Amino acid sequence: MYPRYLTVVAEFFARPGLEDELRRELLALVEPTRGEHGCVQYDLHEEQGRPGHFLFYENWTSRAELDAHARSPHIERLFSLIDTLVSEPPRILMFDRIG
Amino acid sequence: MYPRYLTVVAEFFARPGLEDELRRELLALVEPTRGEHGCVQYDLHEEQGRPGHFLFYENWTSRAELDAHARSPHIERLFSLIDTLVSEPPRILMFDRIG
Repeated sequence: MYPRYLTVVAEFFARPGLEDELRRELLALVEPTRGEHGCVQYDLHEEQGRPGHFLFYENWTSRAELDAHARSPHIERLFSLIDTLVSEPPRILMFDRIG
Repeated sequence: MYPRYLTVVAEFFARPGLEDELRRELLALVEPTRGEHGCVQYDLHEEQGRPGHFLFYENWTSRAELDAHARSPHIERLFSLIDTLVSEPPRILMFDRIG
């Protein structure tokens, strides 16, 4: 049976000059998040030709586990810093995988 | 060694009333594309609470293989139809996976 994961696509746009700092903060989330219960995939990307535009692609087995992730210390740290690092609000969308 | 895939994120926004037709056309791409050389991941999603907003998440082993995919009969078919099915231009971005 094909699992119907909950997918999150989260985009962050660095404030000019803070690309490296935002990249470092986002990379620091990868390993602790992959160790969380219910995390199936958590990959970080940077757009070609647009340094500082980052995108997480995330698959979770349930909404409860995603909600627990949002309360994790590493995510709380990021959100305490994020306003200083980004040039516009993050674009965070939730999807159902359909195929 | 962690592979540095080429990632594509492609979003499509259905013209109102044509959500089902666009969904059918996009779902039809999944199996033939997964069989293409160099395709590591090709998953289709629909936004929660916004039917008709679709997102492909794609990983490819090389640019040459992605270019071959763009010339495949199933993608040519989609792009011959797409203007009638969408309400705005597709948002298709290329990323490097960094973590």
